[in-house]
Amino acid sequence: MNSFATRVLNGPITQAHCQALDASDPLAPLRHRFSLPPNVIYLDGNSLGAMPAAAVERAQTVVAQEWGNDLIRSWNSAGWKELPNRLGNLIAPLIGARENEVVAVDGTSINLYKVLSTALRISHEERPHARRIISERSNFPTDLYIAQSLCEQLDYELVLIEEEALPECLQDDVAVLLLTQVNYRTGAMLDMKSITSAAHAKGILTIWDLCHSAGAVNVDLHGSNADFAIGCSYKYFNGGPGAPAFVWVHPRHVNRYAQPLSAWHGHDAPFAFVTDYQPAPGIQRYQSGTQAVVSLSLLECGLQVFQEAQSLGGMVALRRKSLALTDLFIALVEQECAKFGLMLATPREHYRRGSQVSLMREYGAGLGDDSGAYAIIQALIARGVIGDFRAGGGKGSPHLDILRFGFTPLYVGFEDTWNAVKHLREVLEKEEWKNPEFNRRNSVT
Amino acid sequence: MNSFATRVLNGPITQAHCQALDASDPLAPLRHRFSLPPNVIYLDGNSLGAMPAAAVERAQTVVAQEWGNDLIRSWNSAGWKELPNRLGNLIAPLIGARENEVVAVDGTSINLYKVLSTALRISHEERPHARRIISERSNFPTDLYIAQSLCEQLDYELVLIEEEALPECLQDDVAVLLLTQVNYRTGAMLDMKSITSAAHAKGILTIWDLCHSAGAVNVDLHGSNADFAIGCSYKYFNGGPGAPAFVWVHPRHVNRYAQPLSAWHGHDAPFAFVTDYQPAPGIQRYQSGTQAVVSLSLLECGLQVFQEAQSLGGMVALRRKSLALTDLFIALVEQECAKFGLMLATPREHYRRGSQVSLMREYGAGLGDDSGAYAIIQALIARGVIGDFRAGGGKGSPHLDILRFGFTPLYVGFEDTWNAVKHLREVLEKEEWKNPEFNRRNSVT
Repeated sequence: MNSFATRVLNGPITQAHCQALDASDPLAPLRHRFSLPPNVIYLDGNSLGAMPAAAVERAQTVVAQEWGNDLIRSWNSAGWKELPNRLGNLIAPLIGARENEVVAVDGTSINLYKVLSTALRISHEERPHARRIISERSNFPTDLYIAQSLCEQLDYELVLIEEEALPECLQDDVAVLLLTQVNYRTGAMLDMKSITSAAHAKGILTIWDLCHSAGAVNVDLHGSNADFAIGCSYKYFNGGPGAPAFVWVHPRHVNRYAQPLSAWHGHDAPFAFVTDYQPAPGIQRYQSGTQAVVSLSLLECGLQVFQEAQSLGGMVALRRKSLALTDLFIALVEQECAKFGLMLATPREHYRRGSQVSLMREYGAGLGDDSGAYAIIQALIARGVIGDFRAGGGKGSPHLDILRFGFTPLYVGFEDTWNAVKHLREVLEKEEWKNPEFNRRNSVT
Repeated sequence: MNSFATRVLNGPITQAHCQALDASDPLAPLRHRFSLPPNVIYLDGNSLGAMPAAAVERAQTVVAQEWGNDLIRSWNSAGWKELPNRLGNLIAPLIGARENEVVAVDGTSINLYKVLSTALRISHEERPHARRIISERSNFPTDLYIAQSLCEQLDYELVLIEEEALPECLQDDVAVLLLTQVNYRTGAMLDMKSITSAAHAKGILTIWDLCHSAGAVNVDLHGSNADFAIGCSYKYFNGGPGAPAFVWVHPRHVNRYAQPLSAWHGHDAPFAFVTDYQPAPGIQRYQSGTQAVVSLSLLECGLQVFQEAQSLGGMVALRRKSLALTDLFIALVEQECAKFGLMLATPREHYRRGSQVSLMREYGAGLGDDSGAYAIIQALIARGVIGDFRAGGGKGSPHLDILRFGFTPLYVGFEDTWNAVKHLREVLEKEEWKNPEFNRRNSVT
């Protein structure tokens, strides 16, 4: 992928160059594993991943055959019971976890509640004086809401900081450090290994939210010696809308306590129907109740594409392509859209970047006090380039709105990136975003 | 339906009589809204409801169109955001709740954790001396596991009782009474109204688990003046395997506290991405994170059949047919299978019966020490009659295994019931259950 950097030095990037990058992309065949609508460049896989083509048939099978025809027998015959564990084992190698250390279950917030509860119990036992939870102010808010709930219940204090303040905040009074590896707004990535190490030096437990990194970044939970991790599967894992999330707990902690959402599928003998809760050994105890089987089944289609990617270089190759795509996007925006008041919110350094590029516009650059960012995204969507908008500015930039563009290396190509920037330039040049239709706010997820 | 009782008095029940009951059944047309495999009599809708025929096409639409083609836009265009509320409003009239009082969300155990947490907070504020939670020993175990977790966290005591002891147990030291309206093993139904009233007389809050009653019994939450209710949607609501559950909170309690699984979809402004949790007003605060959209969407197909049932008499007609079916099944088992050592676990009185019939066999009636109940169920399944097995005996009957037969009035008919008993008689007469193949245990859900 060095050819890209070389090319920049030699003059403007051309469409032909992007086509050449696609032609030499070893991951290009995986694009055909996804069904995307024609004339769409989908740069929102960081919000909802695209549909694997196999999902349509899988949905038919699980609904018409497994549910409709085989009915209750499918708990055994179709392996419904084993789905959380089986899918967890497909996720494990993608995040640096080992076999039987991950289950696919419930949602990210629910799973965070489980692991934060356990982390606080362990911390309380070992370091009862440590009564603070540290997180980033710019963390995805649902993580903060769950932390607030447990702080209120268990008399802890949630302290929200800026990333820069992290080193000095890791003090002896901190119980748990709760961080999202890749920031949902800016795409900035934290160094899991060094931060975990600094936290451990003070006895602090770490919880890593992998929602915006799993499947896009080479996550290494064991290599980083992390304590707990959670994440969703409907973004880079392409599991489908609201697909069940996952949870990982380091083996040194997993059998310490039962998690509080102690329902029957986390029981050591769920079908014995005994009155007393006895947590299953290992990560199985992080299951709770009966899972949404149809949604869970579809996740397998997304994870199967990653299995196929293994022979093409796996997560290392995916990460390499992701960085090449975001490098290209940044360079093209600079080359094509320099004069339109866009700023870069995403770090340029590879080790600091996830798999998205966030651009910013100042308030007042649009109609009235508006930044125009929302309308630019709407105008792009009308042209088939789907990114999304986040209001309110990036870290330290309260008067800047954000345009987010996610690059999923499984199905986004280099010429796609060229075309996306071409559309962006045209929207800006032709001031299409001034169209009142694009300025009517609708909630965006 | 009185004709059935009359017929019994006049001599043995015949197949022709059952056919006549089907012919005059006003709900018979609803059978065609379900897709059941040929040659199957499905008496396990109390475990996993049958598939509405519309679910196949709905799965295609939500997967191929809403996810695959419309992608992230479907949160708005396909109404994904409103699904928990919209489906909650379809459930509300079926359980005696009002508009915007129910959301379809998460699983039963997770929802129980939410409402029991809130109930204990309210109780703690009003009656801090009350430190006990009362439930039935024979309650579905996952409810007890969740209660145990909260007891440990909040220093309450879970007291498990037999139903008969209920009146004397409702004392001033009880905070919450947690009951399942219809017992999952025996099909026995509790009187929600009188029990709630007796609990309230002592200041005790009530939580009703409707898993085995919602959609089969005329539940009246407001008429019973209940405090909290939860239930699953994959049994009588036919929502699909592991379909999201529902939660209801009486308006007098709903805004008192935030529930502890306070994630972003329960926030007053989920898409404002602010750092502080502010619970939405009303039942919306009982949402947590992003829902499994595909599974949730399929639930609508099940609930639409209930909408269609409205013009045919609604829940009143469904309840009437359910009782006629279980009456018939009991009478036919007595008529056809009297000599095979089966006992009735389900109450005969209508007001005490849900929508299932549980038969019992003594240990030792089968091979070796076994009751033979498991093998009888397996032999029936091999004949296409699907019921299920629960080990260990009903209340007060530790040496009795249970054969469960659920009667869903939407798709089970009277001749089905005749044929089911005919197969049961043949399995017993021909001792098919002695086949070793039917005695190999496999877990059953």
